[in-house]
Amino acid sequence: MDKKYDLVIIGAGPAGLTAAIYGVRANLSVLLLDKLAPGGNVLNTNEIENYPGFGKINGAELAIKMYQDSQNLGAEFEYATVTEIVDGEYKKVYTEEFENPFLGLSVIIATGTRPRMLNIPGEAELAGVNVSWCAICDGAKYKDKDVVICGGGNSAIDEGTYLSTIVNKLTLVSDFDLTGDPNSAAYLRSLDNVEVKPYKRILEFIVEDGHLSGVRFADKETLENEEIVKCDGVFEYIGALPNTEFINPCSIGNDRGYIITDEKMRTNIEGIFAAGDCRSKGLRQIVTATNDGAIAAQEAWAYKKSKHIN
Amino acid sequence: MDKKYDLVIIGAGPAGLTAAIYGVRANLSVLLLDKLAPGGNVLNTNEIENYPGFGKINGAELAIKMYQDSQNLGAEFEYATVTEIVDGEYKKVYTEEFENPFLGLSVIIATGTRPRMLNIPGEAELAGVNVSWCAICDGAKYKDKDVVICGGGNSAIDEGTYLSTIVNKLTLVSDFDLTGDPNSAAYLRSLDNVEVKPYKRILEFIVEDGHLSGVRFADKETLENEEIVKCDGVFEYIGALPNTEFINPCSIGNDRGYIITDEKMRTNIEGIFAAGDCRSKGLRQIVTATNDGAIAAQEAWAYKKSKHIN
Repeated sequence: MDKKYDLVIIGAGPAGLTAAIYGVRANLSVLLLDKLAPGGNVLNTNEIENYPGFGKINGAELAIKMYQDSQNLGAEFEYATVTEIVDGEYKKVYTEEFENPFLGLSVIIATGTRPRMLNIPGEAELAGVNVSWCAICDGAKYKDKDVVICGGGNSAIDEGTYLSTIVNKLTLVSDFDLTGDPNSAAYLRSLDNVEVKPYKRILEFIVEDGHLSGVRFADKETLENEEIVKCDGVFEYIGALPNTEFINPCSIGNDRGYIITDEKMRTNIEGIFAAGDCRSKGLRQIVTATNDGAIAAQEAWAYKKSKHIN
Repeated sequence: MDKKYDLVIIGAGPAGLTAAIYGVRANLSVLLLDKLAPGGNVLNTNEIENYPGFGKINGAELAIKMYQDSQNLGAEFEYATVTEIVDGEYKKVYTEEFENPFLGLSVIIATGTRPRMLNIPGEAELAGVNVSWCAICDGAKYKDKDVVICGGGNSAIDEGTYLSTIVNKLTLVSDFDLTGDPNSAAYLRSLDNVEVKPYKRILEFIVEDGHLSGVRFADKETLENEEIVKCDGVFEYIGALPNTEFINPCSIGNDRGYIITDEKMRTNIEGIFAAGDCRSKGLRQIVTATNDGAIAAQEAWAYKKSKHIN
């Protein structure tokens, strides 16, 4: 018979890792699943200074520390890509990698978000080559080269400020003007090697010999005044999408893919909870993810108790 | 003219410190007030292992780290005991220590809770002498002595486990049986120097020459079968009360003293927010306090923006 867990957590970012820590400390048997290395989007953050107590810390370092905490306390971890959750007394969590489902009395969905894409010519072809979503990961290879950022929000501004110290020339092409924090925007704008092209729509990433040679864009409303900026790399910061496609078959309530919960992190299906960025909520931060994870695990404990299972 | 702040935060525990960090990073001018040393109840916790990333950390150490983060980023701090908040375009925050009020466009109340007391003879007289609410703070002085704990919940069990390693004999006297985490309760019960007296009501702390000599208690329902346990110290863990007495004059909505907010931490008074343990909420933990602080500060920023104040 397959091993049953009190709690299966899908996603090992700050929400899932905190849920694991709280779950194990509440004496639940906990299995944590992630298709990638633990840490979630924290892994792709260079410097974090809003997780109280750590001053400034590198994202990967914080991710490893949180993961180690979960492991030291006794949570199990498996690399697995969840494809479906089937409801029942024990939820069946199906994955690409394992033939049999993992069985969890409770399931916490903490799968976070991924970057939104433009869906324009050249993007899919160059993804991971010269199109990136992580300045920290890929910025170094554009030292003294020219780079375009798509977007003008806080992520675009913050990552642009970082890239500006590495690249030769940085051009921000945005649907609107810079919409992020005004001080940060003003600082970025003041830099000699930074130019902002506001109210533009990007039409194409131009591919030459399998590499990016430039970005073609035009006025956002009229699509007139086409321009090409020559560049060697593109970084996209145009928002995020929840990693929740696998939930559709099991009717978990959601708002444009973001899972709807009450304040106890309960979804509309008994025993299934959601935590962190994949949840419909106001502020998506490490501290709000850890909050959700703790509450969800506590509720998973209460759910088990309500079922009179030892 | 008095100095005006974008944000005055009352209480420097994890919620208030996180609000300060988020407030300063959002470019708000931030004043943080506390009547005691920064850290709140974290200061009184020996070992914390559910704040992800830190493994096991001493409460005072974590408190200092969080406080340092807030100071490094530029939050101001004052020792002050708030007596009243008067509403207005800028809220006036009156304190015992300063003649003039502090002025804040927004105010975040993050004053936490304090231990509930028994209100029985001998308690007030011995408070801070032989009656304590913090095993970490005062346990050491009862080395090889006899101690009573009032209470049987998680705090009583956890602090009892800690005290059991220090004292000669530990007796838990509780309204109910041990109601906290079953594994932790079983472990505590198994210790040779621990005895549990369930379903009892404590009637008196017996004072001799200004010191405790014993605890008198009886059956909870009938008040029969009086007993006296001789002891040198008492630790009370019978729940908490919100530190919100000062809000009553300004009609902030509350539930038995716990401040009612929406999910954005907004109270019923515009520009006044609440965060952390003093808020009416489900789970009171460090990670849920930091969550509240971040959201409240973000909303204070949005409030300032809505007022078109630079």
